[in-house]
Amino acid sequence: MLKKFIDSVDDLVAHSAAGLVTAHPDLLSLHAEPLFVRRREPKRGRVALVSGGGSGHEPLHTGYVGPGMLDAACRGRVFTAPTPAQVSAAAQAVEAGEGVLLIVKNYAGDRASFDMAREELEIDHALVVIDDDVAVEHSTHSAGRRGVAGTVIVEKIVGAAAEAGASLDECKALGDRVNAATASMGVAFTSCTVPDAEAPSFDIGPDDMEIGVGIHGEPGRYRAPVAGADAIVQLLLGPVLKDLSIARGREVLLHVNGFGGTPLIELHLLNHVATRQLAEQGIVVRRWLVGNHTTSLEMAGASITVTALDDEMLRLWDAPVHTAALRW
Amino acid sequence: MLKKFIDSVDDLVAHSAAGLVTAHPDLLSLHAEPLFVRRREPKRGRVALVSGGGSGHEPLHTGYVGPGMLDAACRGRVFTAPTPAQVSAAAQAVEAGEGVLLIVKNYAGDRASFDMAREELEIDHALVVIDDDVAVEHSTHSAGRRGVAGTVIVEKIVGAAAEAGASLDECKALGDRVNAATASMGVAFTSCTVPDAEAPSFDIGPDDMEIGVGIHGEPGRYRAPVAGADAIVQLLLGPVLKDLSIARGREVLLHVNGFGGTPLIELHLLNHVATRQLAEQGIVVRRWLVGNHTTSLEMAGASITVTALDDEMLRLWDAPVHTAALRW
Repeated sequence: MLKKFIDSVDDLVAHSAAGLVTAHPDLLSLHAEPLFVRRREPKRGRVALVSGGGSGHEPLHTGYVGPGMLDAACRGRVFTAPTPAQVSAAAQAVEAGEGVLLIVKNYAGDRASFDMAREELEIDHALVVIDDDVAVEHSTHSAGRRGVAGTVIVEKIVGAAAEAGASLDECKALGDRVNAATASMGVAFTSCTVPDAEAPSFDIGPDDMEIGVGIHGEPGRYRAPVAGADAIVQLLLGPVLKDLSIARGREVLLHVNGFGGTPLIELHLLNHVATRQLAEQGIVVRRWLVGNHTTSLEMAGASITVTALDDEMLRLWDAPVHTAALRW
Repeated sequence: MLKKFIDSVDDLVAHSAAGLVTAHPDLLSLHAEPLFVRRREPKRGRVALVSGGGSGHEPLHTGYVGPGMLDAACRGRVFTAPTPAQVSAAAQAVEAGEGVLLIVKNYAGDRASFDMAREELEIDHALVVIDDDVAVEHSTHSAGRRGVAGTVIVEKIVGAAAEAGASLDECKALGDRVNAATASMGVAFTSCTVPDAEAPSFDIGPDDMEIGVGIHGEPGRYRAPVAGADAIVQLLLGPVLKDLSIARGREVLLHVNGFGGTPLIELHLLNHVATRQLAEQGIVVRRWLVGNHTTSLEMAGASITVTALDDEMLRLWDAPVHTAALRW
């Protein structure tokens, strides 16, 4: 039997979005049909940011709607792209005179929806595609690398730039630059079960882990017996640092992301280990984000994301943000 | 095989606490022996708040250290009380001239540690005991009701009062008052596994839920087949509202707390359902807190906490707070 808090699979996404908005009445508004979550107080005279994707990755993306980050976010069904109508309606609703930057993770379904939405849009817009996952070059649901936990980093930094008055071209260029400076890789201990599925998304042995897993349970690089935290962090950090070609002395942001089913006590342990390993390689962590941000329902596992910072990115990361899931 | 991110069970708690402090260098400091986490910038001329308990409930309590909430928090091993030496050392370290308020959840081990620590303390101090769990009158690890997710509510409200200059007597009285105005009840779908245990903390059938479960997997009121979200919320809210004797028109704070293994999409659905059920009974939810705050490692399940607000509590709830897990 499905052990989940659900009444109707068909209503889950809409009612859950309503529950999020209910909890933040001063911050968020719900648009019911088509479904999206938007900032309660609209921006004026600034570039608006719109993101979205399948549900089941909460708090991504709706948890990042608010001043300093997204203007609206669209939720599809669990692990399913939002419709083009959701994306275009959200973009039109929050456009504030300076155009809309769309941010999408690189999955075929999401890309198709955002592309179709763009064909309908008569407002200025641009698209940033997130593909930070270094585990595999192509995957079950993507041509090219997948977009994973680095999405939050891009949305935060570009959101701050938009809030400060950057143009659409500047926001687009910055988003691409942060995405290129960001690399991620994850590991899963367990699978997860989509609410209307008969069985978990994939099978994994009682002693195995999937190195390089995707955030929908897609295969990664290989299976191996579960190892200690120090060994796992090495397996994840190696490809991430290789991809970024990070030199000694470089300053970075480190994001340890939980997939949903891993306790915070373990995520903080991973942070301790990863920060130490980076220091041993002469890499200076300047900022940290540790927690469940880009999840895969109740999957046990975690990913490590590194962003090679420059001064502008660091300043924008530190700028105020007020969302349900990120606030300072 | 244990599927957890761990190198050494003996080092887990200390290294995880170090990982938390590492991620918040401007906010927190680590005291290694005995182990506690404290605010980096000490208070002056204010009552200090110290809490603590077993690890495995993160972010409780160390995630709530910072301006507007706790001054220090002690972590024991997983599901094990901190030592008296941890509690007394933390209290002495953060005492700021106006005495220390100790906040403890009502479990025999925690109570004994805090009581022994009090015998050693030569500074002014008082104790608030949290016992908000209405599920059972006595439990495996407690004489009297257990302290659960309401702890966060008490720590936030009293922390704001201390920050504003309330005396030790006033903080103690307020803590007792918020605790009395707060009631919680939880449900578990799955168990959790303590890192050095051979097996999960309890067995539960593939179709069953434990109504009234404790945050260490202690038995609750009864087992039943898993039901829909609406039915489960009724089962939890009924005893909570009965305990508080809440009349129509009363204003409350609603806290939907995840036990660690339940995705946020489900917690927000629970919030939607609970808010609606309260409205149907004429109860006005004024503030919401939804997320994984008082967890039981990776247990799937959730609890509902209601606090009957008065104007002072509402004002103190809204006061600024800057901690790792709660910030506004």
